[in-house]
Amino acid sequence: MKTLAEAFAHTLKDVFYAENQLVKALPKVAEAASNADFKAAVKSHLAETRQQIKILQEVFATIDKKPEGEKCDAIEGLIKETEGIMEEAEGVALDVALLGCCQAVEHYEIARYGTLREWAKVMGNDEAHNLLTQILDQEKAANNKLTNLAVSELNVVRKAA
Amino acid sequence: MKTLAEAFAHTLKDVFYAENQLVKALPKVAEAASNADFKAAVKSHLAETRQQIKILQEVFATIDKKPEGEKCDAIEGLIKETEGIMEEAEGVALDVALLGCCQAVEHYEIARYGTLREWAKVMGNDEAHNLLTQILDQEKAANNKLTNLAVSELNVVRKAA
Repeated sequence: MKTLAEAFAHTLKDVFYAENQLVKALPKVAEAASNADFKAAVKSHLAETRQQIKILQEVFATIDKKPEGEKCDAIEGLIKETEGIMEEAEGVALDVALLGCCQAVEHYEIARYGTLREWAKVMGNDEAHNLLTQILDQEKAANNKLTNLAVSELNVVRKAA
Repeated sequence: MKTLAEAFAHTLKDVFYAENQLVKALPKVAEAASNADFKAAVKSHLAETRQQIKILQEVFATIDKKPEGEKCDAIEGLIKETEGIMEEAEGVALDVALLGCCQAVEHYEIARYGTLREWAKVMGNDEAHNLLTQILDQEKAANNKLTNLAVSELNVVRKAA
């Protein structure tokens, strides 16, 4: 990997792998969550993630490459951490800790799409820049939704204390 | 893990482990980076990370616990991804991809400290809230510095293209 274009293709494969792993992981999170709004938010983000995989396929097309994933250690670690919470936590701790894990995943994705989008711009690939901006905006909105859910969940904890 | 206090102690151990791993990983990143400003930024963040470990020890004291780490899969994955870049990339791709990895780590930390800080507030632990806010602000500043470095690095790539 020597050029910006090669770094772009590599990172695109990483996020493609990551989104495909999330499609497998999110249903377990939706099942484990006890708060109904949190469950609904995860399900709606699962639908969005499936759409994002299609958008990423279009990004691969802009660089004349076949969509393929490459094992992304970061998302593996983030998902493993989330699975650990689902095994170890219950009650109040489960929902708040799971919300925290989901936010960590969103932040990871925001960092990755922010980088990829800027690289696309420098490469003069406006189509990829626009497609990646579309995904970035969805991830930011998903993160804001999770923040609001965390705030209401914590309000419940505060009142119960 | 059932209560917010237990989730807090668990996540505190996670970030304590993460910062200690970063103290080991950052010197390798500083060595691998070719841009002088990037090298300097990583070295300065290494010094800041050592300080943050001391601040985290104070946070442990506020909950009457001994500072100890617990294996954090997310940071392990993020560091493994960074090591992969150092092995596979060279030239322009190395610096831009490493900057991207460092930003992904910062985003992870911003998510974690943001969560921990809010939990501390709900637990009525103002001292922990203030200490964690101090670290959160440093991570945000570090991320902004990396963004500026990435922008200048990309400007160099653009001009050379």
